[in-house]
Amino acid sequence: MPQLRIALAQVNACVGDLAGNSSMILDWTRKAVAEGAHLVAFPEMVLPGYPVEDLVLRKSFAAANHAELESLARRLQEHGCGDALVVVGHLGRDDEGPRNSASLLHGGEIVATYHKHHLPNYGVFDEARNFAPGFELPIVRLHGLDVGVVICEDIWQNGGPVAALGEVGVDLVVSINASPYEQAKDDARAPLVARRAAEAGAPMAYVNLVGGQDELVFDGGSMVTAPDGEILTRAPQFTEHLTVLDVDLTAGGHTSTTVPAEPGPMRMPAFDVRRLVLQPDPVPAYEPQPAPPVAEPLDDLAEVWSALVTGLRDYVRKNGFRAVTFGFSGGIDSAVCAALAVDALGADSVYGVSLPSHYSSEHSRSDAADLAERLGCHFEVQPIADMVEVFVRQLGLTGLAEENVQARCRGVTLMGLSNQRGHLVLATGNKTELAVGYSTIYGDAVGGFAPIKDVPKTLVWQLARWRNAEAEKRGETPPIPENSISKPPSAELRPGQVDTDSLPDYDVLDVVLDGYVEGDRGYAELIADGFDAELVERVLQMVDRAEFKRRQYPPGTKISLKAFGRDRRLPLTNRWREVRP
Amino acid sequence: MPQLRIALAQVNACVGDLAGNSSMILDWTRKAVAEGAHLVAFPEMVLPGYPVEDLVLRKSFAAANHAELESLARRLQEHGCGDALVVVGHLGRDDEGPRNSASLLHGGEIVATYHKHHLPNYGVFDEARNFAPGFELPIVRLHGLDVGVVICEDIWQNGGPVAALGEVGVDLVVSINASPYEQAKDDARAPLVARRAAEAGAPMAYVNLVGGQDELVFDGGSMVTAPDGEILTRAPQFTEHLTVLDVDLTAGGHTSTTVPAEPGPMRMPAFDVRRLVLQPDPVPAYEPQPAPPVAEPLDDLAEVWSALVTGLRDYVRKNGFRAVTFGFSGGIDSAVCAALAVDALGADSVYGVSLPSHYSSEHSRSDAADLAERLGCHFEVQPIADMVEVFVRQLGLTGLAEENVQARCRGVTLMGLSNQRGHLVLATGNKTELAVGYSTIYGDAVGGFAPIKDVPKTLVWQLARWRNAEAEKRGETPPIPENSISKPPSAELRPGQVDTDSLPDYDVLDVVLDGYVEGDRGYAELIADGFDAELVERVLQMVDRAEFKRRQYPPGTKISLKAFGRDRRLPLTNRWREVRP
Repeated sequence: MPQLRIALAQVNACVGDLAGNSSMILDWTRKAVAEGAHLVAFPEMVLPGYPVEDLVLRKSFAAANHAELESLARRLQEHGCGDALVVVGHLGRDDEGPRNSASLLHGGEIVATYHKHHLPNYGVFDEARNFAPGFELPIVRLHGLDVGVVICEDIWQNGGPVAALGEVGVDLVVSINASPYEQAKDDARAPLVARRAAEAGAPMAYVNLVGGQDELVFDGGSMVTAPDGEILTRAPQFTEHLTVLDVDLTAGGHTSTTVPAEPGPMRMPAFDVRRLVLQPDPVPAYEPQPAPPVAEPLDDLAEVWSALVTGLRDYVRKNGFRAVTFGFSGGIDSAVCAALAVDALGADSVYGVSLPSHYSSEHSRSDAADLAERLGCHFEVQPIADMVEVFVRQLGLTGLAEENVQARCRGVTLMGLSNQRGHLVLATGNKTELAVGYSTIYGDAVGGFAPIKDVPKTLVWQLARWRNAEAEKRGETPPIPENSISKPPSAELRPGQVDTDSLPDYDVLDVVLDGYVEGDRGYAELIADGFDAELVERVLQMVDRAEFKRRQYPPGTKISLKAFGRDRRLPLTNRWREVRP
Repeated sequence: MPQLRIALAQVNACVGDLAGNSSMILDWTRKAVAEGAHLVAFPEMVLPGYPVEDLVLRKSFAAANHAELESLARRLQEHGCGDALVVVGHLGRDDEGPRNSASLLHGGEIVATYHKHHLPNYGVFDEARNFAPGFELPIVRLHGLDVGVVICEDIWQNGGPVAALGEVGVDLVVSINASPYEQAKDDARAPLVARRAAEAGAPMAYVNLVGGQDELVFDGGSMVTAPDGEILTRAPQFTEHLTVLDVDLTAGGHTSTTVPAEPGPMRMPAFDVRRLVLQPDPVPAYEPQPAPPVAEPLDDLAEVWSALVTGLRDYVRKNGFRAVTFGFSGGIDSAVCAALAVDALGADSVYGVSLPSHYSSEHSRSDAADLAERLGCHFEVQPIADMVEVFVRQLGLTGLAEENVQARCRGVTLMGLSNQRGHLVLATGNKTELAVGYSTIYGDAVGGFAPIKDVPKTLVWQLARWRNAEAEKRGETPPIPENSISKPPSAELRPGQVDTDSLPDYDVLDVVLDGYVEGDRGYAELIADGFDAELVERVLQMVDRAEFKRRQYPPGTKISLKAFGRDRRLPLTNRWREVRP
């Protein structure tokens, strides 16, 4: 049985940092080669980072990518890694346009390149817009074994390149990915990889990116799966990780499978297969290492928490900030943001500011101070009464205009402190508020990043209780004051105000929003689901009218790739209402 | 020679307003039928408005579209328009997904439907993402003549549906469009329509949408072009217009043309042609009306001004506002915005606010007052010194933080007045500032709409001089104070500050920006163009770093469909720099 030692490099790339990403690939390859790996696989688009958005259009960026890739091949050779086959995702460009490519580096050269075939063009993905699809499948013989390469979405569709590789026969399929995290997505990935390994009649080595990039978080979870569906190894989530695995492969024992029929009108694309022989003969038999462990996916809440911590940390660090600042209101949203920020950056990088007004309750001040005390972060009090008074008096503001000016004086204060000190301002609003437009533009919506922008209010509470329970398990102080969890939420912009003056109970609201926003269920369907008609009408009208506020909100980590998943979601000028008033 | 009286209804639809748009179609068809039209063509997506963005995903919206279309067919019949063939653009939806469709209404029914084939997926267009392409070509025999229908982008590509119609033979091609304005675009459209008419061997009736929708403006300019390239009639730009034209057509005299070879790897799509006979025989011969005039396209500056006026007016009105408010700084940007706003909405709907600080010059106050006087709009003075002082003193702000707090106190003041009075705030920044990030987030970037967001600074000056000259031609008071045009631009955020402290001269800056941003020219190319290396380096670094500010800027009318044309343009976390510092 021919053997091969393969390494999956689950790394954290930064978009645009060609030199940094290239050096990282060199370092990790050297580690893998030092452990005897014959093949080292890096994620999709690891060289430019993912997603590159409209950088894809810049010819100078594509040219720099190509130069960096050629230089990387040479440097790998110079550092004694020339015998390994290194699979690197990168931006390509040729006469057909930009490409999402995987190049195979060996002996100081680029020996083969595959261009991604299936280009996703929905949700957070714009690939059919940005890239030209590939129709050529390179198969490289490495130590007597035939290795094929595919990229990410290629494995999510039936009858694609994996089926084609199965038809012509390969011994190993390397699947390189930049597959963003979304809640419970790992439930879908493992069976899919198993299905494709069966289709190819060969093991599949699946390597995924890790880390945050703008609103996306990549969770890793790289794995190797046998054609019978057994997961041979799996890397942990949300952390860089090098997996090295010895696999026994049956050279030439290709199982030609039947390509499943493609549903719908799309014709089965024809691929041109190009075979290349690097090393015709197997490596001499050796004693395999014990397989590394199969990491279990995290529990749901731990997974969400890790995604939010990763997204926040990478946004702050990759943008060159060392610290964050935001309002500590004493409420649950800012408390959860504070705990996330301390987990992401450390307490010394978190600057909480209490911004009390005339209407702020005593408990909002004491809960904010308690939070800072529990976390050990920086804390100061900046009353906004004097600022608010000048605006209200000079402009004669009343009602909603007066409420908003309080939130905006907080925003100006935080931005002033940010400009003076160089800290990044965080916006602490949650997804429920974003959905219904319950926020003040240029007020509490101020900030460079919004850590819980995609977290519904009820999940904010769940995360708070979960994080406190984790602390207790570890014998640490629970970070979030119990009072912030248990008291009724209030914006405190007028005396005695609570959120339920303007909004339904969050328990009901979040379920209706999930149906309308995530589930794309219309008014009639929601009524058929048994919800109160008046309530549904009220909620849907709020959602339909909040588009401008949603667009002006700062970016934040996504834990759902569906709703509010792109910047432009609905028209601004839009008279369509799911329910007429 | 068989005759046909055709009507092109160049109308202004509002996205989402199914009932309103439907009634508009009925009204305009009745007018056309009253003038004896046999065929009435409305623009692409006239029923839901264009672009519908992610409303396309809502099944309830697609269902409402279909119901409205069926109702419209019945109402047309009830109102005596059943004998006319009415071509209506709308959102379709079937098993393949959403469609960009054109339905032919006749005798109270939908007699045929065409689904757009070529779906643009670049610049401001997301159609390949949103719609499934069509492969069926209906050809309807109307009064003995064969009529085919295509939609917008279908005519921008070689070897598409028009070539197919030419192959099988038609007597008239109706092309319905929602083709957004961009500078000098009409120079491209007329020859293109002529080329396609020749390819089809039949006259082409080209009807375009008019009016503003979010950032796009549709300029109209509907036309009928003979196969020999002669423009038989053309409607004026930027105004609703009904064109009624008698055309002589040679039934069955189809010229089968050779389909031009498609460059690149795309195969010529096969279309299924479906013929339908409504009225086999020609109408009895009648005396044709004289052809309506061929409107000449506007001059470049008049065209841009009209686009900006239309974009602003429709954004304000379609969103239900009656008035706008913004800072009158005495500078050129706010002066041009004020003149645009008065042209769009009337002087009584414009509320100028002078917001002087300690650093504001005397001329900035007097030029602002002069502007208001010339325009006859509302005007008030709200000094910001007291607000600024509280923030600066309490927070100990200095330098840039102090400069920014002035701009932000202006933003809070304008938003306070807006909330109190219900006026829409305009942001008065120009494209040059947007490109290099020369603005204060939550300060001068505050607003619901930015009228000159896509206008480079040098073009702002040109427009000011042009508008004043137009006023003089008409014997009116030039709206813009000469001093606002001639004085050196300054943000006045510190003593003696002028823009050229931070920026190169605008004459040079705008040319470099045009090369880098619109022309996608890289550093090396710009140096080869002869620009100073240090200057280019400085400008490119500013552009590369300003993405977050650009994303947070309010929407504004586009006069270029290329650069900054979508909300998400570049990654936020992005270490790529065209030039390294």
